[in-house]
Amino acid sequence: MFRHQKELQFEIKVDRPDPQLAKQVQEVLGGQFGEMTVMMQYLFQGFNCRGEEKYKDMLMDIGTEEIGHVEMLCAMISQLLDGASPDDQAKAAQDPATAAIMGGINPQHLLVSGLGGMPTNSNGVPWNGAYIVASGNLLADMRSNLHAESQGRLQVARLYHMTRDEGVRAAFRKMLARDRYHQYQWMAAIEELEQRNGVVVPASFPPEAELESQTEAYKFWNLSEGQESKEGLWATGSAPDGTGDFVYEADPVPLGNIPNPEIPASSLHHDLD
Amino acid sequence: MFRHQKELQFEIKVDRPDPQLAKQVQEVLGGQFGEMTVMMQYLFQGFNCRGEEKYKDMLMDIGTEEIGHVEMLCAMISQLLDGASPDDQAKAAQDPATAAIMGGINPQHLLVSGLGGMPTNSNGVPWNGAYIVASGNLLADMRSNLHAESQGRLQVARLYHMTRDEGVRAAFRKMLARDRYHQYQWMAAIEELEQRNGVVVPASFPPEAELESQTEAYKFWNLSEGQESKEGLWATGSAPDGTGDFVYEADPVPLGNIPNPEIPASSLHHDLD
Amino acid sequence: MFRHQKELQFEIKVDRPDPQLAKQVQEVLGGQFGEMTVMMQYLFQGFNCRGEEKYKDMLMDIGTEEIGHVEMLCAMISQLLDGASPDDQAKAAQDPATAAIMGGINPQHLLVSGLGGMPTNSNGVPWNGAYIVASGNLLADMRSNLHAESQGRLQVARLYHMTRDEGVRAAFRKMLARDRYHQYQWMAAIEELEQRNGVVVPASFPPEAELESQTEAYKFWNLSEGQESKEGLWATGSAPDGTGDFVYEADPVPLGNIPNPEIPASSLHHDLD
Amino acid sequence: MFRHQKELQFEIKVDRPDPQLAKQVQEVLGGQFGEMTVMMQYLFQGFNCRGEEKYKDMLMDIGTEEIGHVEMLCAMISQLLDGASPDDQAKAAQDPATAAIMGGINPQHLLVSGLGGMPTNSNGVPWNGAYIVASGNLLADMRSNLHAESQGRLQVARLYHMTRDEGVRAAFRKMLARDRYHQYQWMAAIEELEQRNGVVVPASFPPEAELESQTEAYKFWNLSEGQESKEGLWATGSAPDGTGDFVYEADPVPLGNIPNPEIPASSLHHDLD
Amino acid sequence: MFRHQKELQFEIKVDRPDPQLAKQVQEVLGGQFGEMTVMMQYLFQGFNCRGEEKYKDMLMDIGTEEIGHVEMLCAMISQLLDGASPDDQAKAAQDPATAAIMGGINPQHLLVSGLGGMPTNSNGVPWNGAYIVASGNLLADMRSNLHAESQGRLQVARLYHMTRDEGVRAAFRKMLARDRYHQYQWMAAIEELEQRNGVVVPASFPPEAELESQTEAYKFWNLSEGQESKEGLWATGSAPDGTGDFVYEADPVPLGNIPNPEIPASSLHHDLD
Amino acid sequence: MFRHQKELQFEIKVDRPDPQLAKQVQEVLGGQFGEMTVMMQYLFQGFNCRGEEKYKDMLMDIGTEEIGHVEMLCAMISQLLDGASPDDQAKAAQDPATAAIMGGINPQHLLVSGLGGMPTNSNGVPWNGAYIVASGNLLADMRSNLHAESQGRLQVARLYHMTRDEGVRAAFRKMLARDRYHQYQWMAAIEELEQRNGVVVPASFPPEAELESQTEAYKFWNLSEGQESKEGLWATGSAPDGTGDFVYEADPVPLGNIPNPEIPASSLHHDLD
Ligand SMILES: [Ca+2]
Ligand SMILES: [Ca+2]
Ligand SMILES: [Ca+2]
Ligand SMILES: [Ca+2]
Ligand SMILES: [Ca+2]
Ligand SMILES: [Ca+2]
Repeated sequence: MFRHQKELQFEIKVDRPDPQLAKQVQEVLGGQFGEMTVMMQYLFQGFNCRGEEKYKDMLMDIGTEEIGHVEMLCAMISQLLDGASPDDQAKAAQDPATAAIMGGINPQHLLVSGLGGMPTNSNGVPWNGAYIVASGNLLADMRSNLHAESQGRLQVARLYHMTRDEGVRAAFRKMLARDRYHQYQWMAAIEELEQRNGVVVPASFPPEAELESQTEAYKFWNLSEGQESKEGLWATGSAPDGTGDFVYEADPVPLGNIPNPEIPASSLHHDLD
Repeated sequence: MFRHQKELQFEIKVDRPDPQLAKQVQEVLGGQFGEMTVMMQYLFQGFNCRGEEKYKDMLMDIGTEEIGHVEMLCAMISQLLDGASPDDQAKAAQDPATAAIMGGINPQHLLVSGLGGMPTNSNGVPWNGAYIVASGNLLADMRSNLHAESQGRLQVARLYHMTRDEGVRAAFRKMLARDRYHQYQWMAAIEELEQRNGVVVPASFPPEAELESQTEAYKFWNLSEGQESKEGLWATGSAPDGTGDFVYEADPVPLGNIPNPEIPASSLHHDLD
Repeated sequence: MFRHQKELQFEIKVDRPDPQLAKQVQEVLGGQFGEMTVMMQYLFQGFNCRGEEKYKDMLMDIGTEEIGHVEMLCAMISQLLDGASPDDQAKAAQDPATAAIMGGINPQHLLVSGLGGMPTNSNGVPWNGAYIVASGNLLADMRSNLHAESQGRLQVARLYHMTRDEGVRAAFRKMLARDRYHQYQWMAAIEELEQRNGVVVPASFPPEAELESQTEAYKFWNLSEGQESKEGLWATGSAPDGTGDFVYEADPVPLGNIPNPEIPASSLHHDLD
Repeated sequence: MFRHQKELQFEIKVDRPDPQLAKQVQEVLGGQFGEMTVMMQYLFQGFNCRGEEKYKDMLMDIGTEEIGHVEMLCAMISQLLDGASPDDQAKAAQDPATAAIMGGINPQHLLVSGLGGMPTNSNGVPWNGAYIVASGNLLADMRSNLHAESQGRLQVARLYHMTRDEGVRAAFRKMLARDRYHQYQWMAAIEELEQRNGVVVPASFPPEAELESQTEAYKFWNLSEGQESKEGLWATGSAPDGTGDFVYEADPVPLGNIPNPEIPASSLHHDLD
Repeated sequence: MFRHQKELQFEIKVDRPDPQLAKQVQEVLGGQFGEMTVMMQYLFQGFNCRGEEKYKDMLMDIGTEEIGHVEMLCAMISQLLDGASPDDQAKAAQDPATAAIMGGINPQHLLVSGLGGMPTNSNGVPWNGAYIVASGNLLADMRSNLHAESQGRLQVARLYHMTRDEGVRAAFRKMLARDRYHQYQWMAAIEELEQRNGVVVPASFPPEAELESQTEAYKFWNLSEGQESKEGLWATGSAPDGTGDFVYEADPVPLGNIPNPEIPASSLHHDLD
Repeated sequence: MFRHQKELQFEIKVDRPDPQLAKQVQEVLGGQFGEMTVMMQYLFQGFNCRGEEKYKDMLMDIGTEEIGHVEMLCAMISQLLDGASPDDQAKAAQDPATAAIMGGINPQHLLVSGLGGMPTNSNGVPWNGAYIVASGNLLADMRSNLHAESQGRLQVARLYHMTRDEGVRAAFRKMLARDRYHQYQWMAAIEELEQRNGVVVPASFPPEAELESQTEAYKFWNLSEGQESKEGLWATGSAPDGTGDFVYEADPVPLGNIPNPEIPASSLHHDLD
């Protein structure tokens, strides 16, 4: 069960309205790697967590924090949209510079939300349940979490340069610091889990269960001409878990057959007869 | 530019038709973490790669391999659907065991694709461009790739137990081995990049650029009751890059204000007056 | 800012696993009118609420409650999926009755979530930001809320008959009672708001602002043959706000022109020349 | 079966082209609450209506009217897009004011539709079947209809201020008047149905069927700090159907257990062992 | 403006309920090539048609007919769902054969629509505006229409074998005949338009406007090994419009450069430095 | 299995950056009829092709070519986005003309892709598996292919006028020529298949199998007032396959019944009693 406290986690106070920026900020609210994504991802992982109280509690701690991040971004977008009514816009249109900022507004911020944040990205595409994952395998999921926080911090860093508003920037600095912590957090969790189970997901399907195919797990197939890819750590030395040595297949050939599917029954109406 | 060779990368030869399994296999063809996803993700990362020939070549090598994995899964699904025409099904309905397998068919495998693979997941939801990312930041993207291969191998491992068909299992073992290699590959690339740039994405927004907010990057906010989460590596010791020590905020309080947004102009028709 | 408490709002204890029911329950978790929808709808309405502290607080109270309802349904689905691993299923296949229940499993509950709830509906379609609305007009939004709770309770009532599991039914009775309260709640809020602003949304665009078109607001156009529709309250008497009397246009004729659009410039390549 | 008449229901004659407005008008054509939504919603409710000839006829009357509204908006958008070919735009680019209007064009209005309306919203997101509902319960559906007409009229009212084009405004006044009528219409239908069945949906799951949970139907859970929500009609007095009195739980505690899900079989590859 | 007549275009009278078939029929109602698609496609093409009264009238004739086809399929699905309430299903579960048919029900036909047709396909994926096109170029659009009717008739033909219900089959025979006529109709329109403008879309971008690239319009690039593709009409002889002769490039080489994109500014946070 | 060659199929060298054009070019990369669509459509048709080696090889040849077209468009978009970092944009904002081009950037080209192409259309809507079809019926699919190439060439032709960049135009001329060839190619394939099987899809459901409904295959239903549609080839003469003569039903009447669906069991909670 959840409870809500009226104060925001961090201060949100923008210097001045900027509807174009409000549109851009939607990416980190309702985009593929926005706050809605990490909120829902951590909550579902926490809700579904089985038998690992430490991780479950940690997921619930951070999932609960992220609900508050959605709240903060809605507060920011509302402030950025202040004074963006059609009439204000008509007035603003007198001054070309302001007009450009006003004209860059997301039309749905006027028509649909009446100057509030929306569960959509910077192009207005609705947030989607397929953005998230909660697989029941902790290491797989922590890697998903690290990737999401990496993409998320990258986007906030880019957004940081798209405004000179010091109030907005101060809020972004808070988010950048939190996203940095969250990267640390998932790295630490990954380190623990890799020490316990090894680095390959899932550990419960070990190399030897791959039987005759085990050797395929060490080969690099050079299928794009050029051998620049030979220089990476993935092409030489041993696998991180020491189970084998990498092989660079400079000139790979297919190992399979040419498919030769059957003609189906005529009730499929393929007209192949 | 690309070229195609008629042989499959690995042999695909299922022992017997199984339309229900064909439906399930769609998850690893056209689902969130299926072969279409890794194919398109690596190709877009490769196409968009700037100034890092070694990584670009490697991305193109593996992206090109993944097109062939989509091809293999289509071959597998076609074979699993052999003999699943409506008339065959009517005959099968005599035998309850076969009837169950036949009845579990995805209706679109009959109606839409005429017994072929589709760009959809195991519930028939179409593949979506929002499954992938190519951000222009290599470390962020390699972490996305590692997460995708981890989820992908996990799903194939689960699928492995959903059939006793030795032909299918042999193909899955090949996929499990390749997905294992691909996890090694992205780990190796991540290791290289972290050595070069540090572990936080993006490196070009360093802690000191966060100014007054830097301390937020080391705090765990305990927002779900209970302190089980205190026991993890994320709660004690130093950040992986040695820039600070973790703090466990056992009883955190909000640092922000209560939002108090303005009433907009009446042309927004909020009826708040 | 939010906090989480480990106990569920209400007890969830199903009598026995039932993967087919787990699939069906997804509708009221991640479907168009599921708990994710009301949770996100009330939270966004609350976050975006301007200048009406009483309503904002109420929206935050109920939005916060609904996060806990998502949590409860995830707990229920996890329990319904217990013992649905592929191996358990193979065993179950011996007994036809159990086999049917097992066979009705959503394949993603095995492959993707590893026996946990998902942000999708009963057919596996991902939850979507376009399910919700927060318009900035309280009366419009309270009507949306009443409609969502009406559809939601209807679906739970139907689901109630799809199981004989007394544990599940007990939880549904809690949800039915809460959905009943929530219908009362939105009705009460609507009553207050209609008393303040009148029954038409938005009040700030009053009849007289419609100028010459005002009369169109009282006419029923009988465009489907037959006059059964003449018998309703919408066809006789006065409008609820007393601004006019209804007119039943038994034999309506169009009032507009035949459209006659221009041929565009040839650079549109219409080939109409 | 349907028939078409060439005249539009109401006159559509815009004063001058305005591609930016054409983009915005898409919201009320193909958005969440646009004319396509009410058209498809009323038609599906009418097609599926069982045993209530009066309501079925009424739904078909209005559903058929709404097809004509889609037609009118397409005519309006075509006129607003006149003269927006790339060459016209190049010419317009000389005059900064016109350039801004031209530059605000939806690129798909040029590339995809060749200057015609599209089944998409103001951000180009395609219309979606999940925007509508036809549940088979008349009261639930009439509430959906009232909510849709409320949101719809709100959006048209907002759009009204985004243009000074008198031709467009005259058409919007017709739509505002019709949307007003349609709000009256659904209110009247709701009144009839509530008198017949009571105010709670569905009536056929009455309070007493909720058994031991009935008392939950009268409690307000104050889960967001602050008690401003205590002042509403939902917190004091009796439920609208007189079945009980409201209780304001100022300091609510959870009534459920802490979830404790089982570890699944190892074939789920959770790596929890 | 449209009008509705209560009779269906053709008789719909199924012999007996069959919820599994109802699920499958959804494909031709709300799938990619279902009746909703052709209905919306022809209506949008007709609404947007400029300057070709004959074609516009024809599009409106058939678009209006298709609304009635959606109506017929809803009627069919309602009949197929009769007697599929949870209680009926519990009874049916006694008889294994009936149980299978009942168990194959789309859960949303119970939970969401209350035994009515839905705007979704046979897997429950909602209909989508991106299924249709109205481009403003008549030949391009007539080809889209011919393709849609070809896929549509193919699906109905397949569906025909999935039932032995004579009532359903009689209705399908009507649909098959109409889809046959519609294929003739679009072929006839295509023939007219090709005679007027030539066979290439758009005619207003003629070969000579392609300047130096014209020769590329006659070359087949053999990029998949093997030369079986040499035997087709596309590889030998002249182009249908006589503007050139086909060339089979048995061993094609790339004509372009190796891409070498610039490193962006550091504010993009690519970490490539 | 596939291989990649580093050179592009054709030269891509734009004269100067133009972020607004980059946004528009996304339509022909990731839109409904963009290169991703034809690539995936031909590959799936090829992968699933049964028993027609000539067509399968041809589909693989062209499908493989189209992967390279996606590659070329990504290269073009990257070049058009050069110098579009936030800082560059700030500088550009000094000059109004450049500012307009810069301001028209898709925000995701900055935030999400870091100046690279994306699997989305010109409005940012993600590419979707439902854009494509591979039905197992060659004639149906070749018609789909001809329609896709017709819409695709139309869009490129329109795009051609939206820029004066000679480098971009040269690349578009290559694409226009290839799209012209691909139209020829599908026409040739269609001609072959129609000669073999007749013009109606599917041929294996011949007129006589439609039994009593055969006559419906020659009737035009005039359901939109006016008889302009009488003048087309579809209204007079014989069907293209000579199986019957067209009939123009100037004043058609419905042939079906008025639907009269049953009231369902009360457990559906329709409240109709
Ligand atoms: Ca290489
Ligand atoms: Ca905690
Ligand atoms: Ca009527
Ligand atoms: Ca409160
Ligand atoms: Ca070849
Ligand atoms: Ca006509």
